[in-house]
Amino acid sequence: MPLHITSERHLDDGVVEREFTLGDIPGLLWTPESASEPESTPVPLILLGHPTLGLHKMYPRLVARARHAAADGFASATIELPGSGDRPRIPALEQARADLRGVLQAGEPVTDEIIDALTLPLVDRAVPECRKALDALLELPEIGGPVGYSGGVISIGVRLAATDPRIVAAGLFAGSFVPRATFEEARRVTIPLHVLLQWDDERNDRQAALNLFDAFASKEKCLNANMGGHTGVPPHAGDAAANFFRRHLAPEVTPGN
Amino acid sequence: MPLHITSERHLDDGVVEREFTLGDIPGLLWTPESASEPESTPVPLILLGHPTLGLHKMYPRLVARARHAAADGFASATIELPGSGDRPRIPALEQARADLRGVLQAGEPVTDEIIDALTLPLVDRAVPECRKALDALLELPEIGGPVGYSGGVISIGVRLAATDPRIVAAGLFAGSFVPRATFEEARRVTIPLHVLLQWDDERNDRQAALNLFDAFASKEKCLNANMGGHTGVPPHAGDAAANFFRRHLAPEVTPGN
Repeated sequence: MPLHITSERHLDDGVVEREFTLGDIPGLLWTPESASEPESTPVPLILLGHPTLGLHKMYPRLVARARHAAADGFASATIELPGSGDRPRIPALEQARADLRGVLQAGEPVTDEIIDALTLPLVDRAVPECRKALDALLELPEIGGPVGYSGGVISIGVRLAATDPRIVAAGLFAGSFVPRATFEEARRVTIPLHVLLQWDDERNDRQAALNLFDAFASKEKCLNANMGGHTGVPPHAGDAAANFFRRHLAPEVTPGN
Repeated sequence: MPLHITSERHLDDGVVEREFTLGDIPGLLWTPESASEPESTPVPLILLGHPTLGLHKMYPRLVARARHAAADGFASATIELPGSGDRPRIPALEQARADLRGVLQAGEPVTDEIIDALTLPLVDRAVPECRKALDALLELPEIGGPVGYSGGVISIGVRLAATDPRIVAAGLFAGSFVPRATFEEARRVTIPLHVLLQWDDERNDRQAALNLFDAFASKEKCLNANMGGHTGVPPHAGDAAANFFRRHLAPEVTPGN
């Protein structure tokens, strides 16, 4: 499925932002301006994950991450999640979210069944869409590889990391409910990982996040845990994630830079 | 007690290494050559901790950390631990180490009593010595402040961080036995912390390390956990610790650099 560019604008710091559609899925692509110059070398790509709040609401945080990536010479891209933003709602997911709100309001425990219902239909739809987006993005002349995956719903990142060999490094955010299936898939992940954990994340089960980190089979995995709640990720944690991608996507640079 | 410089040599990368004694305690001081130039501004200091293996054995790892610090414009210094290296043995500590070897060989559990006996006599002696070393080091014209503490026996770092207001940031290595008293002292630590944990450290109790990280009262604390055993700390973890000290000891630099 080809990628259809619908708009292009130049941000103030040498970043080209393009809106695109992939079939009926909207997406955003950011590239360093230098990548569009004649005879420039195709650049690595970071696929940016995000929560289910929709691209419009997430735009400020996404573009900040995209600018960071472009400053390191990387393209970055993201697509709308199934059932989010302007995409059609998915009844099973809407029901699961209503069920979650119900148990949270009643102060009841969030069961594995609710977590599965809340997560697995999303992962089952989103992962093939991410892979199609990669197919199309890697056809663009500015974009070469390797590919990194960064952030968003962790179960999507885990399945992509376990199943798509084009992804060579993943930065994951341990900040969402983790279904049992994700722990199993984690044991098949072998690529380098950088896992961000907000130690006091009110929406997260810290022990589950530590268990998930332990489950990954990757020889190189780094847990970066910081204080603060779900949205309180400190700027230096973003810098640490950027250092991780520099190490793995641009291996010719001096280690540590 | 004044610091007595006993030798000075210039390393190949613009670092001045000086041996000193503080009473009968031997120590090492590294400064960037630029700090000795006339009219140069006094530089921050990182006090380097180390395990109980003695300065001679630890020298290669210490000088690597010192070069890293000097490249960032920081002085660094370390002193021999009580009962280590060429310093007189401490019978109570020797007995505790023999007891530890005994229970490890017998496959018996390491009790709180053994951990206390192994650690507290060392901490009680080492912390006042570190403070005296800081008194003397901060009198040197090249050294101003602020002061960071890095690595070594974690109970020493915790007590220094809890009790010496000159120390503004600490990088701790969760890789030694942690006595119960250290958990109590951790609750009084409020300075920014960067805690390194080797996830598969054969000499470390991972859950105890996570509990200790949780106990610190610091608003800014970062846990950086990596794969590998006690001595397998990856180079990028050293870079992350260096970034931490740059943020807190040289606040005028651009965040993230």
